[in-house]
Amino acid sequence: MSFYFDNAATTFPKPECVYSSMDSFYRKHGGNAGRGQYKLAAESSKIIFETRGFIQKILCSPNKDVIFAPSATVALNMVIQGLLADEKKKTVYISPFEHNSVTRVLHHFEKVGKICVRQLFVSPDFEYDIEKINAQFAEIPPDIVIVSHASNVIGLVAPVLEIFAAAKKYGALTVTDIAQTAGLVPLDVANDLVDFAVFAGHKTLYGPFGIGGFAKNRNVALEPVLFGGTGVDSANQEMPENIPGRYEMGSQNICAVAGLHAAAQWFLQNQDEIRAAEEKNHRRLLEILRQYDFVKIAGPADRFSEKTKCIGVVSTVFDGYAAEDIGNVFDEMEIAVRTGLQCSPLAHKFLGTFPAGTVRFSVGYFTGEEDFCALEKAMGYIEENR
Amino acid sequence: MSFYFDNAATTFPKPECVYSSMDSFYRKHGGNAGRGQYKLAAESSKIIFETRGFIQKILCSPNKDVIFAPSATVALNMVIQGLLADEKKKTVYISPFEHNSVTRVLHHFEKVGKICVRQLFVSPDFEYDIEKINAQFAEIPPDIVIVSHASNVIGLVAPVLEIFAAAKKYGALTVTDIAQTAGLVPLDVANDLVDFAVFAGHKTLYGPFGIGGFAKNRNVALEPVLFGGTGVDSANQEMPENIPGRYEMGSQNICAVAGLHAAAQWFLQNQDEIRAAEEKNHRRLLEILRQYDFVKIAGPADRFSEKTKCIGVVSTVFDGYAAEDIGNVFDEMEIAVRTGLQCSPLAHKFLGTFPAGTVRFSVGYFTGEEDFCALEKAMGYIEENR
Repeated sequence: MSFYFDNAATTFPKPECVYSSMDSFYRKHGGNAGRGQYKLAAESSKIIFETRGFIQKILCSPNKDVIFAPSATVALNMVIQGLLADEKKKTVYISPFEHNSVTRVLHHFEKVGKICVRQLFVSPDFEYDIEKINAQFAEIPPDIVIVSHASNVIGLVAPVLEIFAAAKKYGALTVTDIAQTAGLVPLDVANDLVDFAVFAGHKTLYGPFGIGGFAKNRNVALEPVLFGGTGVDSANQEMPENIPGRYEMGSQNICAVAGLHAAAQWFLQNQDEIRAAEEKNHRRLLEILRQYDFVKIAGPADRFSEKTKCIGVVSTVFDGYAAEDIGNVFDEMEIAVRTGLQCSPLAHKFLGTFPAGTVRFSVGYFTGEEDFCALEKAMGYIEENR
Repeated sequence: MSFYFDNAATTFPKPECVYSSMDSFYRKHGGNAGRGQYKLAAESSKIIFETRGFIQKILCSPNKDVIFAPSATVALNMVIQGLLADEKKKTVYISPFEHNSVTRVLHHFEKVGKICVRQLFVSPDFEYDIEKINAQFAEIPPDIVIVSHASNVIGLVAPVLEIFAAAKKYGALTVTDIAQTAGLVPLDVANDLVDFAVFAGHKTLYGPFGIGGFAKNRNVALEPVLFGGTGVDSANQEMPENIPGRYEMGSQNICAVAGLHAAAQWFLQNQDEIRAAEEKNHRRLLEILRQYDFVKIAGPADRFSEKTKCIGVVSTVFDGYAAEDIGNVFDEMEIAVRTGLQCSPLAHKFLGTFPAGTVRFSVGYFTGEEDFCALEKAMGYIEENR
């Protein structure tokens, strides 16, 4: 028996249909990569095609191309490196909450003098100040703006469209990382302000590892970054012009696609309940943590206001304890939480929790009464023994 | 019911243990990416660690680092692009049988003048002529040499170590693509002549989609190409120095790792039988195809001699028919074969089958009597109706 508060790393468990679809599809249709001429491949092609449609539907972006990649991290590399493929030196603005999957890519290009990275202004009380951001852009215009829709450390949701509207006045290209929010937090990805939205299959979409990708504005060019076989147009030594083929090289992971196919269908059928459950579990988590005055919750005081809305990803500092020590207690009690920097040192610098990090709790649709009971027990134990 | 001769694309079916391990592991341990502090993550870390060891064992390369990637294609991009990260213009030699996963990467760098690509000499009767290759190297010394261990079009096995020995006289870096041969065809990957050996999990290793990687010579530097979170050393904006962390960014696909873990164990227990069955099925396939004088088999006349050894990947031209038409007949009869260029236009140019392509049959351990019976029936049907 174990208890799970690490849904920001990957949602767990998955809906039963995800496990069963992966298993049965792979057993039955695993003999092709969805690109053979033969009938067997037709079922794979169909499921890949349908899954693309489901993702468009979940992201409300029928007008954007959905490109699959092995993970959100690979997808971010493809998008960011692809946008930096030309010679021009560029100014890249990012939020103060970007993950290493963004900042490490940028660091590489900054090191070689290819880009200059600047941070969007966020007030000490966690508001994205659009007026100040406008002023930042007026002073040094953006070429590319990258904003995580929600922080993977404190759950803070960014006003992506407002920021991108400001950026578009300067013709900037826009990228949002929706790994923590796809489906969960409504975002008008169809909007022309959004050039790229990078998603993970295994987080808020409740699919498996092995599949992520990005929705792409059809009006924006993106140079391929990874090259390989595409099953079509093989004589061409360039990556083919057709989308998504231009960006999808190598065999499709149809096992993961089958999982995401089931997950996305389930998600579309239960979207409202999933969102409601996540908020309910988020509130319940806060209720428990707030009982203890030695627990400080990082991030905005009001996590449900319009200006500082958060999802159920809650970072805490336990007064007088290192994050790791608290992690060990939870570990002993079979409760999964994530301690340290959560791959986002930048966010912790903003929060003042660098380099010690935090104890992060994150809920999902399946977080249940038994998880909260275990958490209450563990918190009681820590209080008694401090 | 369907019949499968497309094992070079992906082996099918997988051993039962692969399906069952993936399903049960993912259900039980899917709640972590193998990097949390908590106990739940320990099982994932263990299985990742063990799988690395199994791959080292299968490749007979305890002295090399095994790095996982989402696919062989991504791994080839990481290796080739990583080796081309500096400013120096390089001469890259390749075999005439390289897949688009190699040639398209190289084409990108050739286009921008970063490399000059040359082809290793192979005689019209399919022998790698080491003397002539030595002469090629003497004339224009190699910086990098890339050789597929076996062609994915005709199954021809290259004398990788002999070629690399010639290349090492010039200090070249060496890369072999063992997607079609890992485990199946013995190769001394431990040998210092081999700097990189790139494998696919879902082909000769009988694992699932979603995992591949490369074995890396510890004495050779490789610049990271993809960047992202690594779960450790998060404050560092460089990719960490530790191996494999330096090259493994984003969440591990533990579902795929669990599948490869089971596959590799099964492989190690049955290695001799797997090799014997593949050769037996290869011979049986040839026996059937050779009954029809309208079928021309591309590649060497003797597929089992020392100099022109082949694996069970057999490309054919049906006299008077386009490959696609024959593909359609097989398709109608539920037999999976692969027609066209098989993502290797270069090989077809060498074979004289470009751009029409071939009908490719490929066997594996699980190719069975029912597959061969179906093939015989289909061949009889084609003969009667020509």
